[in-house]
Amino acid sequence: MPGYHALSEAQAIEYARSIPDLFSKNSELVCREIGDGNLNLVFHISEPASGKSIILKQALPYAKVVGESWPLTLDRARIESEALIIQGKLCPDLVPHVYAYEPDLALTVMQDLSDHVIMRKGLMDGNRYPLFAGHIATFLAQTLFYTSDLGMNQQQKKEQVKRFINPELCKITEDLIFDDPYTDSPNNNVPPAIRDAVEAVWKDQALHLEVAILRGKFLTHAQSLLHGDLHTGSIFIKADSTKVIDPEFAYYGPMGFDIGAVLANLLLNFASQEGWSADADSRKSYRAYLTQTIRDIWTKFEAEFRSLWNEHGVDRVSKTAGYQDWYMKEVLRDTFGFTGSKMVRRVHGLAQVADINKLEDEAAKERAQRIALAIGTSLIKFNRQADSIEQLIEIADKAVH
Amino acid sequence: MPGYHALSEAQAIEYARSIPDLFSKNSELVCREIGDGNLNLVFHISEPASGKSIILKQALPYAKVVGESWPLTLDRARIESEALIIQGKLCPDLVPHVYAYEPDLALTVMQDLSDHVIMRKGLMDGNRYPLFAGHIATFLAQTLFYTSDLGMNQQQKKEQVKRFINPELCKITEDLIFDDPYTDSPNNNVPPAIRDAVEAVWKDQALHLEVAILRGKFLTHAQSLLHGDLHTGSIFIKADSTKVIDPEFAYYGPMGFDIGAVLANLLLNFASQEGWSADADSRKSYRAYLTQTIRDIWTKFEAEFRSLWNEHGVDRVSKTAGYQDWYMKEVLRDTFGFTGSKMVRRVHGLAQVADINKLEDEAAKERAQRIALAIGTSLIKFNRQADSIEQLIEIADKAVH
Repeated sequence: MPGYHALSEAQAIEYARSIPDLFSKNSELVCREIGDGNLNLVFHISEPASGKSIILKQALPYAKVVGESWPLTLDRARIESEALIIQGKLCPDLVPHVYAYEPDLALTVMQDLSDHVIMRKGLMDGNRYPLFAGHIATFLAQTLFYTSDLGMNQQQKKEQVKRFINPELCKITEDLIFDDPYTDSPNNNVPPAIRDAVEAVWKDQALHLEVAILRGKFLTHAQSLLHGDLHTGSIFIKADSTKVIDPEFAYYGPMGFDIGAVLANLLLNFASQEGWSADADSRKSYRAYLTQTIRDIWTKFEAEFRSLWNEHGVDRVSKTAGYQDWYMKEVLRDTFGFTGSKMVRRVHGLAQVADINKLEDEAAKERAQRIALAIGTSLIKFNRQADSIEQLIEIADKAVH
Repeated sequence: MPGYHALSEAQAIEYARSIPDLFSKNSELVCREIGDGNLNLVFHISEPASGKSIILKQALPYAKVVGESWPLTLDRARIESEALIIQGKLCPDLVPHVYAYEPDLALTVMQDLSDHVIMRKGLMDGNRYPLFAGHIATFLAQTLFYTSDLGMNQQQKKEQVKRFINPELCKITEDLIFDDPYTDSPNNNVPPAIRDAVEAVWKDQALHLEVAILRGKFLTHAQSLLHGDLHTGSIFIKADSTKVIDPEFAYYGPMGFDIGAVLANLLLNFASQEGWSADADSRKSYRAYLTQTIRDIWTKFEAEFRSLWNEHGVDRVSKTAGYQDWYMKEVLRDTFGFTGSKMVRRVHGLAQVADINKLEDEAAKERAQRIALAIGTSLIKFNRQADSIEQLIEIADKAVH
């Protein structure tokens, strides 16, 4: 990309000064690079005099997770920025505000959310977020409805599909979520203690068939503009605020993939309570909080989505008697399948989760891994028969009893 | 579009002369505009001295069917030309050769097929084409397999989806096939004699639900690069040759939509034998020829598609046990549904078919319309239960007994 260069902290400050109406002309600015360094540089720039601060997020032209040998398109910065802007129009309180986007530098300037914490960490610390279910249900309902053929002009939607063709980042998902975990791939990180359970996954043909069908939907079902990577590490949270970040995997795919990402990561934390909870009572109580959150997310999502459909549906045919019920059941079934797929890959795939991997007690960690695998595979195998969110919760509860 | 102007016959000749290595330098060229004038100009240019001839097809910036008031993108000429080139690489004998494409003029120069006839006319004349089933099965298997995630690199496929985003022409299908026929729309042309049957279609909620689901697939299921308008008027034929033309509706959609278009138009002719056949015996015999052709098309298509999959599949996951059987059944079910949808719209929708409309005996025409409507609606309502192509033939046979 002509003009692209990775910014230094000094250059990040210089760029921040050039944004109109943000910082005072000659005030001191402080910059820290705070990215986890996987795919992006993340500069936190603050003005001590005013207390103002912003984030500059710059895409790197490679994925550091496997060294510089895995080149990655800088176009994902455009996709992230455009997705954030669309999401911001639909639910301004639920995503960071975008101040500027600089295509040549693959750079997005956005609201600083340092007063929030990453939700994964919040859950690992045992916090509860009573408003989260409502917030994320609204994010899902608004973004999935209004970017689908149900909620937007169907010809403009096709042009939007074109803008969000995202081959390289989809490829990561296709391989790491829907392929590697089901075969003895060198990309897996198999925990030795559960090798027997992982080998059972590699041999389970009924499971593989469902995964192949789910992968086919991920490849072909251009239903809504997805966030594409909606785990609890992509959510900033505090008691009264939820902000969804990092939509660089955005593309048109099946709604259940985003919903499933949220539920899967709540269930991974559910499994990890083998180690985090101090005793059986607190474990039971926190798990009940998590399953109630899951119930609330689906229930509120479904109610809001149906209400948007009834009040703002753009399509005569979509009002056909019985169609909405059929459609919501398909979304629920996809949600079961993708929830399961998102769990299994986090147990023995390339990228795992801190909820489980940070457990220090090896026996607890092993139990958590086995629980996560049991829930994940059960959800995948059951997905095409699912009828109610209660069945998902039953499958989770059964795995810990 | 800068530089665009509709060509006169003299300008068409001038352009033809500029194509290298085609005609002799100063020889006489003869030009006739032979289009039906709906959407395009079609110039036939021949060189009497050599017997050589070519076709220049130029897109018009509007659809004449409703006057100049329905503007249409000239980008469809690019889509048609690029689709022809892809199809020509996969099955060179089954599409016209493309000599040149002139983007500024929305002009494609291609092989002259004047020695063939339009298949719809061939069928109306009572001709039989024993090689057709094999030819079209190969066209369907090759084009649908090699443009899908099964047969091509899945990241290149996404870029190809982008190139074939085709909102305006898809909109025509979405309205005229999946919407208008199921409601009292001013776009319909309801034959007064069958108004009772058409009103029953407008009231049939079970039918509407299936149509809504099929329309949803047309809108979202980016499975293969479709021809998009594969009726018997888009097929040039003679005893030993089949050529598929006019892929300006090409886009990424469900495979069953192309297969269904072929079967639907054979079944519309099947219905129209009420009037074309001289007597009951010849009617029975020609219908048996048509249903045998349908059986052969599906059987050969399925065999060739499975064989391509087994030998040239690019995707580890697609080799999962049971997946191919599941997938082929889904394609069959979609084929039932889209066959039905393509039939119903031809009975009382905006654009109908000569097979039925050219019947002079009003009683025969009415019987043909009722048969076509009965087959079409039955196929739509049965589509999600279909298991075998024999069931489609049974539904057709039942409608004439």
